[in-house]
Amino acid sequence: MNPLTIRSRLGDYDVDFRDDADWALGLCELDNAFFVVDELVWRLHGEGCLAPLATRPLHLVPATEETKTLEGVGDLCAGMIAQAAKRNAVIVSVGGGVVQDATGFLASVIYRGVDWVYVPSTLLAQADSCIGAKTSLNFRHFKNLLGTMYPPKRVIIHPPLVATLNDDHFFSGLGEIVKMHIVAGPDATKRLEPRMAALCRREQASIGDAVRTSLLIKQQFIEEDEFDRGRRRLLNFGHCFGHAIESATDFAVPHGQAVVLGIVLAGLVSCARGRLTRARLDETTARLLLPTLTSAASIDDLARGAVVEAMHHDKKRSGTGLAVVVPDDDWGLVLVSDVTEAEASRALDELPGALESARSRTA
Amino acid sequence: MNPLTIRSRLGDYDVDFRDDADWALGLCELDNAFFVVDELVWRLHGEGCLAPLATRPLHLVPATEETKTLEGVGDLCAGMIAQAAKRNAVIVSVGGGVVQDATGFLASVIYRGVDWVYVPSTLLAQADSCIGAKTSLNFRHFKNLLGTMYPPKRVIIHPPLVATLNDDHFFSGLGEIVKMHIVAGPDATKRLEPRMAALCRREQASIGDAVRTSLLIKQQFIEEDEFDRGRRRLLNFGHCFGHAIESATDFAVPHGQAVVLGIVLAGLVSCARGRLTRARLDETTARLLLPTLTSAASIDDLARGAVVEAMHHDKKRSGTGLAVVVPDDDWGLVLVSDVTEAEASRALDELPGALESARSRTA
Repeated sequence: MNPLTIRSRLGDYDVDFRDDADWALGLCELDNAFFVVDELVWRLHGEGCLAPLATRPLHLVPATEETKTLEGVGDLCAGMIAQAAKRNAVIVSVGGGVVQDATGFLASVIYRGVDWVYVPSTLLAQADSCIGAKTSLNFRHFKNLLGTMYPPKRVIIHPPLVATLNDDHFFSGLGEIVKMHIVAGPDATKRLEPRMAALCRREQASIGDAVRTSLLIKQQFIEEDEFDRGRRRLLNFGHCFGHAIESATDFAVPHGQAVVLGIVLAGLVSCARGRLTRARLDETTARLLLPTLTSAASIDDLARGAVVEAMHHDKKRSGTGLAVVVPDDDWGLVLVSDVTEAEASRALDELPGALESARSRTA
Repeated sequence: MNPLTIRSRLGDYDVDFRDDADWALGLCELDNAFFVVDELVWRLHGEGCLAPLATRPLHLVPATEETKTLEGVGDLCAGMIAQAAKRNAVIVSVGGGVVQDATGFLASVIYRGVDWVYVPSTLLAQADSCIGAKTSLNFRHFKNLLGTMYPPKRVIIHPPLVATLNDDHFFSGLGEIVKMHIVAGPDATKRLEPRMAALCRREQASIGDAVRTSLLIKQQFIEEDEFDRGRRRLLNFGHCFGHAIESATDFAVPHGQAVVLGIVLAGLVSCARGRLTRARLDETTARLLLPTLTSAASIDDLARGAVVEAMHHDKKRSGTGLAVVVPDDDWGLVLVSDVTEAEASRALDELPGALESARSRTA
């Protein structure tokens, strides 16, 4: 497949789709490269597609929230200096979102910015986060409080890397892929629907196509609104509730799963406001959303209260109303900022029933 | 005086020159402001021009190298959160380069960038570092290893703040002002020469004019080459030797003083290469450079060896030759990258004699 070139005010960059095994060899030939690899990814692929990297000093990191903190970045920085890093260094990182965030942040601040090549290893990172230039760090208990805008010089998508993902991670990525298609509109979702079965069976060709389509959709939004001040916010569809669900369940619900639940919840808010019919919501839930939900995507009664609490907290922090991207009856999306906590709470109460009625449609 | 508007790809910003006392009152009216003030500046001006700020919660920090580290930024971040910072927060900082670096870095990374108003309190910061968008942090024993490009939204220059500087700080700033005029060319230095006496006597009107002229000179370079890839590097005149002197003396020689010595050393390299006559170097040294040197600007024999060592280390880190901005006989500047350690060493040996012969000219 041809590379995608992402235009960015911070420097254009290419996304290369590489099915072959040579890409890792190429990385070994980079001068002054500092390699950071997710330790689990290394265990799973160190003797496979990543084997060429074994000849180079590797900095292995766990994919934990601690890795993406100021302290974690300090550890990486120390490792880079120990390797006698120079201004013309290039950071090469292989991993999911955590590794992307930590190494992207490091790349953006060491020597005020060095080159960075990123190889996403999760479906979520391949289909979504690898473009868009956002890096994030946690600070104390505040997730993603810190961050920079800094794109890699190059992204390499190697589809076989996602074959080893567990179901939670795989379907989490699939959830974001579905979201991306909904955001793109009815034509995109119509093309996606017949492919859902193959995607759920993890057929590699279908996954590769869906990844590329998702990136093409996201590309339009980020090129038009790189600094997230307008249209790009629609990419947050499902995320207002989604973030609150992650926070309320202490991240037991994986990100993409929380986003899918968030889409259903935003739909329920829209139904209650008379902007979307329940039949249309059930239909989309049954065809596109339910297939991506694993057993990890559950919120019990206790957590439902915590979700509203988390949204209340978020609202206080933004200093504006409760902002939710909601769908209308054609699944056109609009960002409204006047959703009340009562509305959010009611949607959460209705969630189990909505999932159940969609489930009965598919049966 | 009219404000200067600095054009930046990262967002244009104004430098306001404010002799009046109302500027601090205006800052108190900002919503969601987080105030960071150099603790010494607060002791000296807390009951003077900064008095209006006493009504607001202030975060006082020492102007030490520890303040501008990842840990120091973490402390500021915690303080900002304790004050319930929001995405629409604005950081207001008052201080010299250390405070600028720490708060600028924080502003650039919290919520991926919040507004920042900076009030420089040293002559160096007023005349030079407050524009140009660079923020820097130390990492372990590596000075300014980390950093971002992030301009303030607004800079406020209040000339009386520099009245309380000790001689080392004042003349350090004056050294950078002289460098800026040399970089601008013979017309600028000719206008500066007759004013040197008044500047050395710290006459406020002369200082205000020199600050503005320095910023106007720097503005041309940074607007043309914001990301420091070409012409802006000429602003580093005096800095190759200067940084090595600071490092070799463990920062006993203040920055602007080290830069002035660095200018003489670059001149000596140029003389040895036959690009500059010794008479021209002595003349400039006598008229512009010597007046700015205080007793702190001394390098003994031991330190001279350490300077070459530091330059050697720097060369290794950059991965290129020893790059020095050198003057020709019209004080036109050019960046050469083939200066040998032997040449640097010889210039250091000649430095005491060069200063002595310039001194005898002025006597």
